[in-house]
This record gives sequence, C-alpha cells and structure tokens, in this order.
Amino acid sequence: MPPTDAQIIAQALVEADLRGMNSHGILRLPIYIHRLQQGGFSPISNFDIVKETPSTSLIDGGNGLGAVLTTQAMDLAISKAQKSGIAAVGVRNSNHNGEGALYVSRAVQAGMIGIATTNASPIMPAWGGTTPITGPLPLAVGVPTDKADPIILDAALGMSSRGKILYYAEKGLELPQGWLVDADGNPTTDPNWINKGGWILPIGGHKGWGLILICEILSGLLTGGAFGRELTNLYDDAATPQRNGHFVIAINVESFISTDSFKQRIDKYICEMKSSDLAPGVDEILMPGELEARRRRQQLSKGISLNRKVVDNVISLGKELGIFISA
Amino acid sequence: MPPTDAQIIAQALVEADLRGMNSHGILRLPIYIHRLQQGGFSPISNFDIVKETPSTSLIDGGNGLGAVLTTQAMDLAISKAQKSGIAAVGVRNSNHNGEGALYVSRAVQAGMIGIATTNASPIMPAWGGTTPITGPLPLAVGVPTDKADPIILDAALGMSSRGKILYYAEKGLELPQGWLVDADGNPTTDPNWINKGGWILPIGGHKGWGLILICEILSGLLTGGAFGRELTNLYDDAATPQRNGHFVIAINVESFISTDSFKQRIDKYICEMKSSDLAPGVDEILMPGELEARRRRQQLSKGISLNRKVVDNVISLGKELGIFISA
Repeated sequence: MPPTDAQIIAQALVEADLRGMNSHGILRLPIYIHRLQQGGFSPISNFDIVKETPSTSLIDGGNGLGAVLTTQAMDLAISKAQKSGIAAVGVRNSNHNGEGALYVSRAVQAGMIGIATTNASPIMPAWGGTTPITGPLPLAVGVPTDKADPIILDAALGMSSRGKILYYAEKGLELPQGWLVDADGNPTTDPNWINKGGWILPIGGHKGWGLILICEILSGLLTGGAFGRELTNLYDDAATPQRNGHFVIAINVESFISTDSFKQRIDKYICEMKSSDLAPGVDEILMPGELEARRRRQQLSKGISLNRKVVDNVISLGKELGIFISA
Repeated sequence: MPPTDAQIIAQALVEADLRGMNSHGILRLPIYIHRLQQGGFSPISNFDIVKETPSTSLIDGGNGLGAVLTTQAMDLAISKAQKSGIAAVGVRNSNHNGEGALYVSRAVQAGMIGIATTNASPIMPAWGGTTPITGPLPLAVGVPTDKADPIILDAALGMSSRGKILYYAEKGLELPQGWLVDADGNPTTDPNWINKGGWILPIGGHKGWGLILICEILSGLLTGGAFGRELTNLYDDAATPQRNGHFVIAINVESFISTDSFKQRIDKYICEMKSSDLAPGVDEILMPGELEARRRRQQLSKGISLNRKVVDNVISLGKELGIFISA
C-alpha cells in the first residue's frame, strides 16, 4: 500500500480509539490486513473520477480502502467548495470506511460544514418488513466553532449499537423497550435476538427509517454503486469486495457569512444552551462530539486505553507479519 | 400581495390539505391574513440576494412570506444545480413556511434530489436542559422515481406532533412512553403537559437532538439570521416578524449518473423493499410520502376533506374581507 494511504488508515483507526470510539479503532486492523491478503480490499485505492461538474464528482474506488477513498473524497469536496460554495462527492466500489467523524472533521479544519454518510451490508429491513435490505446507516455532520470544541455529530440512525446490545447480552441484562425486535419483527427486550435474526430499530420508527433510506440512496443509488442486498459485510468472505458507497458534502461557511462571525455565533448559541436549566439527573449539557473531544485530549496526554484482547491480537498479527511490536 | 405570490401561498395551503397534512393546510389562512394586516408578515416578499457564489445564495427575505421565499429559494437552487451539480440557498428574515414537502417536490419535478429545513420558535431545550432553545425542526428530502410515487420524506425530528398529543389529551388517553416530558424534563404519559411547559422528545434522544441542532445551524446560524430564542411563534404578537430562517439544497442527479438510470434503480429498490416479508400486523410496506400521494390522488378526484370548523373560519374570514365564498 502506498505509505500515504497506510498513514490515512493508521490515523483513522487511532483517531477512533483516541476519541473513545473503540468499535472503529485498532480493533479493525486484523480484518483489514486479512482482507488485503485475501483480495477483499485492494491495497491500491484508485481514486478514479468517473464524472465531474464544478461542484460534484463521482468516484470509482476500484475496491480500495474506505478510509483512504472517503478522506480523498472530502478533500476534493472541500477544494471544490472553496470555489463554488458547496460541493458533493460520491464514491462507489469502496469498502468499510470506519468513523464518519474523521471526514467531517477535515471540513471543520478547513472552516467548513462537512456532511458524510455511507451504506453498509443489509441487517435491517424496510419499515414494516422483515427482509434485511439496509443497515442502521450513519450520518455525520461537523460544524466549526470559535473557542468551543467543534460540533461533531456522528450518529448511526438506529436506537442502539450492536456493540451495546452485545454488552447487555454478555451481562444477562434486559434491553430497554424500543431498541430491538426479534426475527419476526416483534418488540423484544432479550438482547440475544441480535444474533438470531433480530434487528435494531431505527430512531423515531418510520422517521429514522426514512432518513436511513435517504443515506442509502445518496451512497448507493446515486453513485451508481451497489445498494441494499448487493453489499457484503466486513467479516463475510474476505476475498469478496464489500462494494460500499459513500457520499460527502462540504459547505463553505464563507459563501454565506464571514467564517469569524459564524464561529462566534455558534459559540454564542453553545453558551446559551450550556447555561440552560438542567433536567433531573443531568450534570452538564454536552454538544455532539464534546465528550469525544475531551477523551481525545485526555488520551493524547495519558495514553490510549485499549482492551487487552485487542492489544494481544495486534501483537500476534505483528509476529505473523514479521513486524516487531513492543507492548 | 403580488398575484403570483398569492398563488404560491394558496397552492402551499391547498397542497398540504390535499396530501392530508391538514395541520399545514387552509387552517393557517386566518392567522396568515391576520399577520398580513398587523404587519407581522410583509405582503411584499423581497427576495434580496445578499451574497452569491456559483453554487450558493444567501437571501434576506425582508419579513416576507415563508412559502413564497422558500419556493423561490428552491427554484434558484435548482437552476444553479443545473449548471454546477449541487446548490444550496439560505434564507433569513422570513416567516412560517409550512410543509417542507412542497419545496423538495419542486426539485423532484426537475429530476433532482431536494433537501429543505427551517428553524422555528423555541419550544424544546437542548438535550439535558429544560430551557426552550429550538423546536422539533423538520427535515424534508425528495427523491425522483420512475413509475413509483416520488419518495418524499418530511419529518419533524420529534417523537410526535403537537397535534397528535392534543388529540390524546382531548380523548383522555395516556401517551406512549418516550414521547413527552413534563416541565422539569421528567418522562410523562400525561398529554396535558404539552400545554403546561412540557415538550416533545427528539427522535432517538441525543441523536435526534443532534440532527435538530444541525437544522437550526443551517437555517439560523449560517444564514446570519435569527436563531434559538430570537424567533417568535406564528400565534404570538401578530405585529412582530417571526424571523425564521430556511435552508434548501438541490442535487442534480444527472451530475452523478443518468437521471433515467437513477430513476430505474430507485424503482428497483422500492420494488425489492415492497416484496419483503411483512412484520406482524403490517399489510403493506409504504415508502415515505406514498400515503400522502395516494390521499392527494383520491382528494383531487373526490374533493378535499376538511374540518367543519376550518371551513366556517374561512367563510367568516371571507365575509370580513368582503370576499364571497360558497360552501
């Protein structure tokens, strides 16, 4: 893999761990390596521009790595938005791209508002159905601020994450109502259904389902790439490309009002929200991404906290590949 | 008011009723007239372009009518997206703009994907707070199709609508869990809290809250217009402008793949979803906007069903204004 691409992947995984989003962190390294070895990921991420207008580009990723392609897509959107105010880039024939926060943060660093979404292998049916046809897709939005931490919303549009439900199962706990259904679509509080054909409900029922559908349309259908049942999972056959599509938008703040003025207005609004009276049991009002920004600062100075098993896996992977890793 | 603008308002109200969204229909005519008389709405909707780039425009609406300004904003976005692939238009100093579905449908008619949002007077606090600072803001997205009804998602990002909760109150029914909190932010199933300082919860808790925050940022903060507590309600002092902001995006499908191919892909995906096995109690899988499209066809041929009180109000308003209305 070209060193610059390897660096992007390393940064994507470490940044996720730094922000405390371990499910998108170095935990994924073994499967990434395995797919590179088996042909499910191409080590060369061709960023092939299939179609272009002043404010849009369509990219064929040639089965490259999702994080590399989405980073390049957002950088292209930022550069186009600098000239034309807003730009969108769609990517097809890509793979798992990790945390959307990473890409919208690039827009934020350029003083822009960034939006990113992706499709994923089918584990959730259409609203009212039971046949899996999409996933609880993520929508990420980043907004630049002045002194406050940037607003980084990165939300899978499901009521819970798979990881959280597995945690309930492991601890033998009942789930809250409204998170999960069984394989027939009946409401359940038994977390074990997650492994027996049940699925996570979208946020707000049919409303969240509608938002997920839009994410699938932008990432899969508009890009001319794979959609719905055509995608495969990261942990399925490692020789088969996943065929994910991604869609990113960059909005140049300066095209509307001065970036300085915008950032000050955002800070003022954050300040107003934070000075709100608090609901029972709440200590502090947090903006989207604020907790992750705090964790990042803390772990940058004190080191990243990782699960022992994840560390062991990385070390044994290093041995396998003849790379010495000290731990 | 210029006749073309009057026509836009008439169409906005009647279209909402046709689609069965009566809360945005002719029900609003009396307050619109009252505000026009009192100065809260300016009859002349100045569409003043404050700033412009190839793919963006910022509009000062000079206290004009929301539906007129948002219609013009979407038409401008469509015309810009025809040249540059994607375009966004922000509007400030506007007022209540009704149903987002109306504006994204204009993009759909032009073969584009349309997105529309707005801010609104504060009735909902930041997540964790109790001081109202925004509303359960709406996000609308329209997607063109081939033979299927267009996908028209128009969702307020709250767990329920005010109208639905008032219905529960009127019937003396308990609300489902998770819709409403009391004035201190405690969960409640008593619908009467809607009139005593309680508020509707965002979809998916902090996730929906994050999405609402983004809608407020695009509509209010990025446009340099009013945000949060600066906005007033449609039914507050009729002489005071509401100061709503709106934000619309048009994405030209043709900039990515051919519109024909896109529409066929969408139809194929809809077909796949509709042929899914059904969850218990479900007769049919519906796409966002499909029920409204059916109601529209039905009411176009059989007439619009309206509440008697709404009709009486319009008739007496007609008498007041010296306009003969037969009913």
